[in-house]
Amino acid sequence: MPQHVVSVGVDLLAQAVEDQAAAVSRVDWRPPMPGTEDDLAAVALDPLHPDADALALGRMLGVQALLVDVLPAHEAIGLERGEFLHAGPPITWERASGPLRGALMGAAVLEGLVDTPEEAASLLEGGLHVHLEPCHHRRSVGPMAGVVTPSMWMFVLEDPSTGARTHCTLNEGLGKVLRYGAYAPEVLERLRWMGDVLGPLLQRAVRATPDPLDVTAILGQMLQMGDEAHNRNRAGTLMFLRDLAPAMVGSGADAADVAEALRFVGGNDHFFLNLAMPACKLALDAARGIDGSTMVVAMARNGTDFGIQVSGTGDQWFTGPAGVPDGLYLGDYGPDDANPDIGDSAITETSGIGGMAMAAAPAIVKFVGGEVGDALAATRAMYEITLGEHTAYQVPILGFRGTPTGVDVTAVVRTGVLPNINTGIAGKVAGTGQVGAGLVSPPAVCFTDAIEALAQAVPTD
Amino acid sequence: MPQHVVSVGVDLLAQAVEDQAAAVSRVDWRPPMPGTEDDLAAVALDPLHPDADALALGRMLGVQALLVDVLPAHEAIGLERGEFLHAGPPITWERASGPLRGALMGAAVLEGLVDTPEEAASLLEGGLHVHLEPCHHRRSVGPMAGVVTPSMWMFVLEDPSTGARTHCTLNEGLGKVLRYGAYAPEVLERLRWMGDVLGPLLQRAVRATPDPLDVTAILGQMLQMGDEAHNRNRAGTLMFLRDLAPAMVGSGADAADVAEALRFVGGNDHFFLNLAMPACKLALDAARGIDGSTMVVAMARNGTDFGIQVSGTGDQWFTGPAGVPDGLYLGDYGPDDANPDIGDSAITETSGIGGMAMAAAPAIVKFVGGEVGDALAATRAMYEITLGEHTAYQVPILGFRGTPTGVDVTAVVRTGVLPNINTGIAGKVAGTGQVGAGLVSPPAVCFTDAIEALAQAVPTD
Repeated sequence: MPQHVVSVGVDLLAQAVEDQAAAVSRVDWRPPMPGTEDDLAAVALDPLHPDADALALGRMLGVQALLVDVLPAHEAIGLERGEFLHAGPPITWERASGPLRGALMGAAVLEGLVDTPEEAASLLEGGLHVHLEPCHHRRSVGPMAGVVTPSMWMFVLEDPSTGARTHCTLNEGLGKVLRYGAYAPEVLERLRWMGDVLGPLLQRAVRATPDPLDVTAILGQMLQMGDEAHNRNRAGTLMFLRDLAPAMVGSGADAADVAEALRFVGGNDHFFLNLAMPACKLALDAARGIDGSTMVVAMARNGTDFGIQVSGTGDQWFTGPAGVPDGLYLGDYGPDDANPDIGDSAITETSGIGGMAMAAAPAIVKFVGGEVGDALAATRAMYEITLGEHTAYQVPILGFRGTPTGVDVTAVVRTGVLPNINTGIAGKVAGTGQVGAGLVSPPAVCFTDAIEALAQAVPTD
Repeated sequence: MPQHVVSVGVDLLAQAVEDQAAAVSRVDWRPPMPGTEDDLAAVALDPLHPDADALALGRMLGVQALLVDVLPAHEAIGLERGEFLHAGPPITWERASGPLRGALMGAAVLEGLVDTPEEAASLLEGGLHVHLEPCHHRRSVGPMAGVVTPSMWMFVLEDPSTGARTHCTLNEGLGKVLRYGAYAPEVLERLRWMGDVLGPLLQRAVRATPDPLDVTAILGQMLQMGDEAHNRNRAGTLMFLRDLAPAMVGSGADAADVAEALRFVGGNDHFFLNLAMPACKLALDAARGIDGSTMVVAMARNGTDFGIQVSGTGDQWFTGPAGVPDGLYLGDYGPDDANPDIGDSAITETSGIGGMAMAAAPAIVKFVGGEVGDALAATRAMYEITLGEHTAYQVPILGFRGTPTGVDVTAVVRTGVLPNINTGIAGKVAGTGQVGAGLVSPPAVCFTDAIEALAQAVPTD
């Protein structure tokens, strides 16, 4: 390399990017969210607070997520006939949006509870023999509608140091799929193949692979390969194939089934999302329930409400209306077709990847919109509202700086800067499927309500 | 996404990077290479020159490289017993460096010409029944020593619009491998397995895959996934696996052989290099032999000499002493163990990837040395000496700008800026193997000799 090239170090670049972020913050500086001054002051005086946040962050960063099994939901998490898990905070059928309703209807047919999606609507509306519950309440996460029923196969992730486990279904692909609210015959046919062929095959492969797939390590690699692990999971999906394919071949399964499974996984760049998500939940679950910590441990949407949970306030949800993402649309779809924000996938941002790590994945702007500079600026801005930098997830273009990790309720409220989430967009009419992808933020009220609860929880002498 | 983030466009970033590159050029501006003024003037007055360069660049950019077959070298390129191909410009055994000698010795044993590498030295020194020839003279390219013998299997790439073909052996992995000059028993055992199992298996898979693997398209994807396709081929290797694995499974081959082949390819992040290289050669071969064009169509090293070929000067080699790369060393190895620059892999830089595209692969600095800013600056500097921007290879972080493509001898001579090449480093003692990886430039004399020949070729009235 010519000397005049070698002489340019990373400092200049870092400074240039820093300058941009600073300029942005100056222009758009905002005061603390209105009415939060007293709550911020109370939390600031909490002697537990700094150590609690350090503990929460440290516990999250200490988790290693290994893929240890693949099981039907009834075995993995004891899901019973008539039980339906869904994404986001708790919700009833009456308040459910189109894509969540569509996914529930399709799943009811899949489980044989009814013969047609239309009959399912009556069943679910009556609510007599069905039970809706958030994935998050069952050590699980679900992308988009996030509907899980007993026969669906799930990845089982485990932290070897504690034995803690989390779960997520297998990814169906894009377009007309159940998690986006579609329930056409081909959607159910694909799900049946996943249950009959793909799930059992992956189970045999996972059980036969000598070293369990280290999802945390793969996530770290993905960020060096242009993925941010929410809407770009290309490299992750490819590494999954690389690591599991030999055992799939050696599983004794029919060669045609193995070839079809390899084609199915290889044909879906988002396949790894359903491993990234439970890995993030596993990390964040370790940080739950620490008195005095203002770190967010879950951000999730059910298509109607956006909800967050915070380490220092137990399992309480702080909710507000889900916004409509701003992004790019598929085919002839447009903003009028978009459902409000939906899915547990914001667990990725909660854990320092996805919208927090867009600087590692500049090509994502072709999927969610914006320019490359936006992707860099988005990550830089998130350092303002996070507790630390991830030790396993680094951004090469920022000189291998760790991603902004651990959303801090106090920092969000104090700066008015909301977490940046990138996400798929579901059609608002049940049965439609995906219509686009874009960017969205949680409603501020989640954080103002959370800071109020955190302030009330500060011990008084 | 918060509005204050969205408001930052790519322009600021582009400007910041532009500013850096400009600063670099100002500080290190150099006059034309000494003694080249008259030749530069002669070429500048050549009325054919601008159109010839445009034609050369256009022909290169118009090539699509498809993987159409996998064949032993004796079938692929008619290589006969006793013929040895090697990397770089022509060379004799007497002037060959350690790693080239080591690879030739190992290959002689592999072909059954002798029983031991030591006997091979006598055979090759005698030179009676052996023939050495550059890969480039046989529509082929070879990484590092680049030794090819008749029994070695080769990828066969074809441009569907012309039927032109190029070839490259299968990649053996890193460390103690033939192409780095190692010839221990395990090196030969691996090569025999590649000939007996891997080659035939890949042949069946390639022939059974409905759409041929589009190597050009994959190279474009790789640059969105942190590869620059010379020393980072991780994503490319994974995409190769994704696209070929189903047909490998369905090939009727023994499941254990398929699983081993999947493990072998998946365990070698550099596997795709041997597809990237012939794809680059295929593109550049289309640009050969255009009167008046000063575009470089080959850069190659044999471990002793660095040679270039130029479109307007036919098959003539312009050579100079190969430099020792500056980089990072494996284990206890250091600069004293390094052989001078070796291999045909600089065909990647000649075609606009590799060292030209390091901005797309910032993580490569962990392999070749330097800081992330160096990787960005390296690519920016190369726009000064190239004829255009690649239409299929884009760098996301530079706002999807095409890579600097088509090294222009006149621009190199005028600016004194030499092409940036990143490369593996072979141990200088035959039998050693790889000792590191780093950065290197061609000797200036290749370009001053070339401009002289180009000036002499300008038609005079």
